[in-house]
Amino acid sequence: MKIINGSITTPKGFKATGAHIGVKKHKKDLALICSDVPATVAGCFTKNTVKAASVLWDINVNDDGGTVRGIVINSGNANACTGQQGINDNTEMAAVYGGLLGVAANEILVCSTGVICVNLPMDKITSGIKNTFPLLGSSREDAELATEAIMTTDTFKKSICVELTLDGKTVTIAGIAKGSGMIHPNMATLLSFITTDANISKKMLQQALSEIVDVTYNMISVDGDTSTNDTTLVLANGMAQNKLIDCENADYEAFKAALHAVNKKLAIDIARDGEGATKLIEATVTGAKSEDDAKKLAKSIIASSLVKAMIFGSDANCGRVLCAMGYSGGDFKQAGVDITFGSNVGEIQFMEKGNPNAFDEDMAKKILSDKDIFIKINLSDGNSSATAWGCDLTYDYVKINGDYRS
Amino acid sequence: MKIINGSITTPKGFKATGAHIGVKKHKKDLALICSDVPATVAGCFTKNTVKAASVLWDINVNDDGGTVRGIVINSGNANACTGQQGINDNTEMAAVYGGLLGVAANEILVCSTGVICVNLPMDKITSGIKNTFPLLGSSREDAELATEAIMTTDTFKKSICVELTLDGKTVTIAGIAKGSGMIHPNMATLLSFITTDANISKKMLQQALSEIVDVTYNMISVDGDTSTNDTTLVLANGMAQNKLIDCENADYEAFKAALHAVNKKLAIDIARDGEGATKLIEATVTGAKSEDDAKKLAKSIIASSLVKAMIFGSDANCGRVLCAMGYSGGDFKQAGVDITFGSNVGEIQFMEKGNPNAFDEDMAKKILSDKDIFIKINLSDGNSSATAWGCDLTYDYVKINGDYRS
Repeated sequence: MKIINGSITTPKGFKATGAHIGVKKHKKDLALICSDVPATVAGCFTKNTVKAASVLWDINVNDDGGTVRGIVINSGNANACTGQQGINDNTEMAAVYGGLLGVAANEILVCSTGVICVNLPMDKITSGIKNTFPLLGSSREDAELATEAIMTTDTFKKSICVELTLDGKTVTIAGIAKGSGMIHPNMATLLSFITTDANISKKMLQQALSEIVDVTYNMISVDGDTSTNDTTLVLANGMAQNKLIDCENADYEAFKAALHAVNKKLAIDIARDGEGATKLIEATVTGAKSEDDAKKLAKSIIASSLVKAMIFGSDANCGRVLCAMGYSGGDFKQAGVDITFGSNVGEIQFMEKGNPNAFDEDMAKKILSDKDIFIKINLSDGNSSATAWGCDLTYDYVKINGDYRS
Repeated sequence: MKIINGSITTPKGFKATGAHIGVKKHKKDLALICSDVPATVAGCFTKNTVKAASVLWDINVNDDGGTVRGIVINSGNANACTGQQGINDNTEMAAVYGGLLGVAANEILVCSTGVICVNLPMDKITSGIKNTFPLLGSSREDAELATEAIMTTDTFKKSICVELTLDGKTVTIAGIAKGSGMIHPNMATLLSFITTDANISKKMLQQALSEIVDVTYNMISVDGDTSTNDTTLVLANGMAQNKLIDCENADYEAFKAALHAVNKKLAIDIARDGEGATKLIEATVTGAKSEDDAKKLAKSIIASSLVKAMIFGSDANCGRVLCAMGYSGGDFKQAGVDITFGSNVGEIQFMEKGNPNAFDEDMAKKILSDKDIFIKINLSDGNSSATAWGCDLTYDYVKINGDYRS
């Protein structure tokens, strides 16, 4: 598997585009993705019991087991907490895009992201989809337009493309994502879309995705708020013509490893671009009794407001890490804990077997002033491990979210 | 029961004092409390598995079932995550204060609060206790010194005193507390100390306290971080000479109501004085299926970073409230939800039966610009209710916690 210069239009048979249709004041707010041929779909969705109309729709489409042809996404308005009107509006979005593609509404997936509790401006949405449809194309630039149009407070576009060989055929997997705030995924991040020309059964595609989501999107947090709109979708159209993957064979493992790499890159980019963030935090817990313990501990560290504020201020206060572990629900023995903070500048072990070490304050400040900070925990209590990703808590997070609707 | 002008030295037979002994640079950092006669004790402690040395000590003293004579508290250093040295230091604190009072170490309770992962400066602590001991007194001013000395980043002193009549005798209950950051209590807040001259059995005192802590300290959050040092202690020395309360009779109910009022006031003050906070948020959920559901929903609302930042910015975004309810784990039907925001300026119903209402933006801004904000949720799904208290998320929270140790 190798990373190549491409995006979601690079896998064979996929088109995309994006445009400004007036949901937002100035920025692009509509993205369209389609496959030239019917595609197998797999999806993972928010576990928040308050689900946006689009999430309810996509869960049904995914559960139906049929193939799909396209995804329509608007940003600027999440169509969440919008009652029956929201459900009707969502159905119309699918029907309009399906009509243009010449397929039924239930072959279309819909995603919305943005402000919640406000009904969609359907006149703009409907005419916007119609006006944008002719722009669908398969160039890198077309994919970039879609990548830009799904963003809300994101500060950079998130995309990746990888290539691998399966059954002698070149298979391509690409993904785009948006994140930023209300990020504490419990099944998937706000929105990510993966296209691939791999030939794989729905069952195996869903199995791979569900396992991967657990160790990528479900291991990041920006602010502890699980969104109403989290959705990850993979479309696999089979145009690479590899032998159908329909069991856990070597091709499945290779495909899954590549799909994992795509989603991990997108998840880390989402953590790095958390609202207001200036630094990425990676917490790795090793030597845990079970993977479940390691996950709880790692995720509690990167979700702690006090750890996040400390990293923002480059203030080495490793007690906050131990404190966050203590209320995580993960099992560990305090007397066995080693804690190391580091970055590209260097690393310092702040705690050894539960006791604080003396350290050089100047060196600690230098290390924590870097952009990518890692926190390594060793528990000496077993062989399981887990990694979680988050970002620092900054003045700008408060600023962005104190005045989000303006 | 009535609130009176008094503090923890107002109940008969209690003395207190506070002083600066050099753990902090300039501010008071040592408080002493004592009862002239042996006092019955009840306590509630952090559920964080990482517990400070003082918490481990106090749990043992409380479980032993004996009476106690005093509490020694230092601020500036939490003596948490400090290994065996921390345990030894804590024992010495109890022994030194006990020696001065002429009682055994296990008749002394110890509390520490402040930076974690740093050993106590024991030379300063030991000489500080000895030098401060002669200052113990029973005036209101003596109590104020103790109230001030337990503070860390608190911006105001938290105390209350109430009086009630039991069995024809005047009984007084008073309390002081400190809070500010690392506040997401799971049994008790950082530190609160209640003195009373009531005559009550240990069993009934602990029963009352445990029930009250569940609906006061356990219903507030500043930043979602459950501390290593949370401790609430009640000392009841019986000097009011009311008939011993040893079962759930009318006197018990009256005492418990008064103890509840004391702890509720302290808990709300802690939420109001959350690190960097400019506003108090009170979330009340009514019409819930069970009290457990109501508690989970109310607490999730006041703990949400997005709700907290929105209140800071006076931005009426009621979808964030519904979103926080959705990931709370509490059961409710979205189609039955009414949401009202209000303050002393007025109130606006933003959601009715799950559908957003149109509203006057200028009026909403005025209402949310007030100091005390309430959020009322009615679920129309049952008869249970709960209230939780929190504060807004501000630039100053980030500033304080980005540079805590400096």
